[in-house]
Amino acid sequence: MTATIKLGQLAEFLGATLCGSAEKEITGLATLQEAGPSQLSFLANPQYRKYLVDCHAGAVLLKAADAQEYAGDSLVVPDPYLAYARISHLFDSKPKASAGIHPSAVIAEDALIDPTASIGAFAVVESGAQIAAGVTVGAHCFIGARCSIGEGGWLAPRVTLYHDVHIGKRVVIQSGAVIGGEGFGFANEKGVWQKIAQVGGVTIGDDVEIGVNTAIDRGALADTLIGNGVKLDNQIQIAHNVQVGDHTAMAACVGISGSTKIGKHCMLAGGVGLVGHIEICDNVFLTGMTMVTHSITEPGAYSSGTAMQPAAQWRKSAARIRQLDDIARRLKHLEKQVGEVTSSAKASSEG
Amino acid sequence: MTATIKLGQLAEFLGATLCGSAEKEITGLATLQEAGPSQLSFLANPQYRKYLVDCHAGAVLLKAADAQEYAGDSLVVPDPYLAYARISHLFDSKPKASAGIHPSAVIAEDALIDPTASIGAFAVVESGAQIAAGVTVGAHCFIGARCSIGEGGWLAPRVTLYHDVHIGKRVVIQSGAVIGGEGFGFANEKGVWQKIAQVGGVTIGDDVEIGVNTAIDRGALADTLIGNGVKLDNQIQIAHNVQVGDHTAMAACVGISGSTKIGKHCMLAGGVGLVGHIEICDNVFLTGMTMVTHSITEPGAYSSGTAMQPAAQWRKSAARIRQLDDIARRLKHLEKQVGEVTSSAKASSEG
Amino acid sequence: MTATIKLGQLAEFLGATLCGSAEKEITGLATLQEAGPSQLSFLANPQYRKYLVDCHAGAVLLKAADAQEYAGDSLVVPDPYLAYARISHLFDSKPKASAGIHPSAVIAEDALIDPTASIGAFAVVESGAQIAAGVTVGAHCFIGARCSIGEGGWLAPRVTLYHDVHIGKRVVIQSGAVIGGEGFGFANEKGVWQKIAQVGGVTIGDDVEIGVNTAIDRGALADTLIGNGVKLDNQIQIAHNVQVGDHTAMAACVGISGSTKIGKHCMLAGGVGLVGHIEICDNVFLTGMTMVTHSITEPGAYSSGTAMQPAAQWRKSAARIRQLDDIARRLKHLEKQVGEVTSSAKASSEG
Repeated sequence: MTATIKLGQLAEFLGATLCGSAEKEITGLATLQEAGPSQLSFLANPQYRKYLVDCHAGAVLLKAADAQEYAGDSLVVPDPYLAYARISHLFDSKPKASAGIHPSAVIAEDALIDPTASIGAFAVVESGAQIAAGVTVGAHCFIGARCSIGEGGWLAPRVTLYHDVHIGKRVVIQSGAVIGGEGFGFANEKGVWQKIAQVGGVTIGDDVEIGVNTAIDRGALADTLIGNGVKLDNQIQIAHNVQVGDHTAMAACVGISGSTKIGKHCMLAGGVGLVGHIEICDNVFLTGMTMVTHSITEPGAYSSGTAMQPAAQWRKSAARIRQLDDIARRLKHLEKQVGEVTSSAKASSEG
Repeated sequence: MTATIKLGQLAEFLGATLCGSAEKEITGLATLQEAGPSQLSFLANPQYRKYLVDCHAGAVLLKAADAQEYAGDSLVVPDPYLAYARISHLFDSKPKASAGIHPSAVIAEDALIDPTASIGAFAVVESGAQIAAGVTVGAHCFIGARCSIGEGGWLAPRVTLYHDVHIGKRVVIQSGAVIGGEGFGFANEKGVWQKIAQVGGVTIGDDVEIGVNTAIDRGALADTLIGNGVKLDNQIQIAHNVQVGDHTAMAACVGISGSTKIGKHCMLAGGVGLVGHIEICDNVFLTGMTMVTHSITEPGAYSSGTAMQPAAQWRKSAARIRQLDDIARRLKHLEKQVGEVTSSAKASSEG
Repeated sequence: MTATIKLGQLAEFLGATLCGSAEKEITGLATLQEAGPSQLSFLANPQYRKYLVDCHAGAVLLKAADAQEYAGDSLVVPDPYLAYARISHLFDSKPKASAGIHPSAVIAEDALIDPTASIGAFAVVESGAQIAAGVTVGAHCFIGARCSIGEGGWLAPRVTLYHDVHIGKRVVIQSGAVIGGEGFGFANEKGVWQKIAQVGGVTIGDDVEIGVNTAIDRGALADTLIGNGVKLDNQIQIAHNVQVGDHTAMAACVGISGSTKIGKHCMLAGGVGLVGHIEICDNVFLTGMTMVTHSITEPGAYSSGTAMQPAAQWRKSAARIRQLDDIARRLKHLEKQVGEVTSSAKASSEG
């Protein structure tokens, strides 16, 4: 299953400077600590420079400065992490689906499926769907009516697209993701919730990645919009009519409430939650588990929550937080008292 | 795909007062800002009243007071949002499944399926299951042994019901939801967890909605219970033996631990977490990401967490919170000191 | 569907002392409050001792001390909760799958499936997969290339294993779980995220349980590792290269970021989040919704967050937290002032 590629070929592929044997055969990738003599490694984080000394890797992707000090073979590149990213795909043993429609799949007569696309076992493709060249639709996928999937897309087994979901080119969707579910729209009539049909769809740009069990709801009226190059990790919830700007990345377990608009090049760490109907500007970084209750208009990093403590100490802190308003009032009162005492003391000493 | 309905017909359907042309044809719904001349819009939130001036909608659902000031066509109703909810279904292009069992479905011989029900491709219906009139079971659904689904239910593709799950009438379940999974029950034997069989089931009332990838575990002994009219958004976790009262709504990513009982007409915002074995009374509102560690006996709104700050400021706040117990003690000490100084000062000035 | 077992047989099965009729027939399990005359109950939590008086159970699992005071029939055991755990499986009406491959399943020619294994309807088993004796693979499961599942495993309907996932013996996986999804690995190239192929797999020990819709990502280079006896509840996210030690349990909605290592016998309550690249030592307990941003080197309980308050009071607390750094500085200043006043007062009174 493993690829075997000569070091010289890898140098050529990357446009890297080769320090070492062009004929050395590389069969895989590993960390500096674990790599063996036929594996390629990389040094991206300066903290790991210490592992270079005892490194047994066949070769290492290094910056020029690091390569000078390294005795073993290396490929010298400006950005070793990026070079590793590019090269990783050469050693990926992920099975490739063959073109064509599995005989068990159920395909609507008027669905348009490019002959170079691959449709897996037990997939269902509904009326009017369009699947472009080179797309892989995994086993157990459901592609709803009038959906479109742009060229080069890859859907893992068991991805569900409701109707009217439009997906750009080269989009990767992991198992269990559901795109186009009916958003949480209800009108309250004397305490009883009346459902609002969600008549919008979902539009997803090019080069988007959507993680395992992530949900992106369809719009209530207009479409929910995911920009180009957006990367969504696992277990994320994107509510109806959310808009996510180009190249924004979200780590796992993020939840975005309805109609919220997120800018470009934002990063949301794991577990972040945003209320609905707010706007986050471009280049915002939200640290883990931050609760965002209002719009953000300035780029930068934002946080909420409290730092972890041993539970016994935390209980004291938590109790004191509930007294904080009282503490602040008492402090103000004390400042007034002390101010009076010191000024009268001053007056009497000067008097 | 789009419905075309005359304004007069819509007025009749709603029992609305028509201000404008009964013959005008409406083909869809849109917001006040986006609606075109063949679309219907609505004004529910007073903040959006400003958009009425430049509104190009074919007609707008309005309260009487707003209609007087609006130059265009309108349908006058007491509650425009509720009227929009009702009318939204007329313009929904969601495909309707036809009655009957898809030839690829695997149905147990003793399953009872009403002839007006629709069973999708690759669905599995196990022994003793009962599916009532007008129910839609989407593709890839799994209906476990002895389950029942009441009339008019709609299961999106890929919904899983374990055995002994009983679902009321007109219940909507979105893709990826799993009802009846085995709850997290283990007894600890010298550090090793021993599994407890979960022998209860799940009982779900009428008019319930269950969101994408939401999980409702079966009971350990008795059933987990979801009341009538309950609305559960996406990615929610309901543990074993939870009870949810009628018409309670939960936004996405809520987690409810085992045996907790939630009252009627509660609202849980996104990301709320509840510990197990507590009771929440009726009419409680929990704001986003609140952590609930004890029972709530009074209706009202409750919160936990901290407000978001720029990360650099937040780090200071977080560090200070860990000093809070110390701060509170020092404040108390200072109050005592100042009290003594001021009373002695008073005494000396009076002396 | 219900089992009927005589009390004497249950005593023998458990090695319990029987106080009562060996011939009494037991047909199920229930709580002390709900059990009827043919049901067995148990007293594990001392808080429920009060329910013994009016208990109508056919018999109760009791410690010796409690049995002395109980008038009804009992089975005396050292640990009633553990005895209940063991006995619960006798009364479980969960359907048992019969051995063999459902005719609708799609099985690769070179997959090795033990004849005593059960493969459900519409399951897909890919090339090189190995499924051991007594394994149940539910309907709609997808078993990727070169996966292995050890003997006695039980996969609910609709479980997805990507390629190269290795699972130990007696592992239980609930519906919607996805093992081996592609972790969130991207290198940033001038603001654009470049995907890193995730070439590692997942290795899972013996006696592991994985909950509904839980995701465990494959490793970037080496495998993601889940130890023996680990219990994972629903909706959990385990990122790439995480390592979880033996017999650690996690409640629902926990999220673990990449490359974090968790020790043995830890307990993570619901909604806990851990950043990446940290280590948690053995025997750590994290309370609900705690955010863990650095390594933990001492066993014990840890917490973060704030205690819930009525929303109006919470808003005041939250506002004051943002003033905390200022409050702490003012307090320090005041202490200095008061120190000077009291020492000068002391000096003047002594002078």
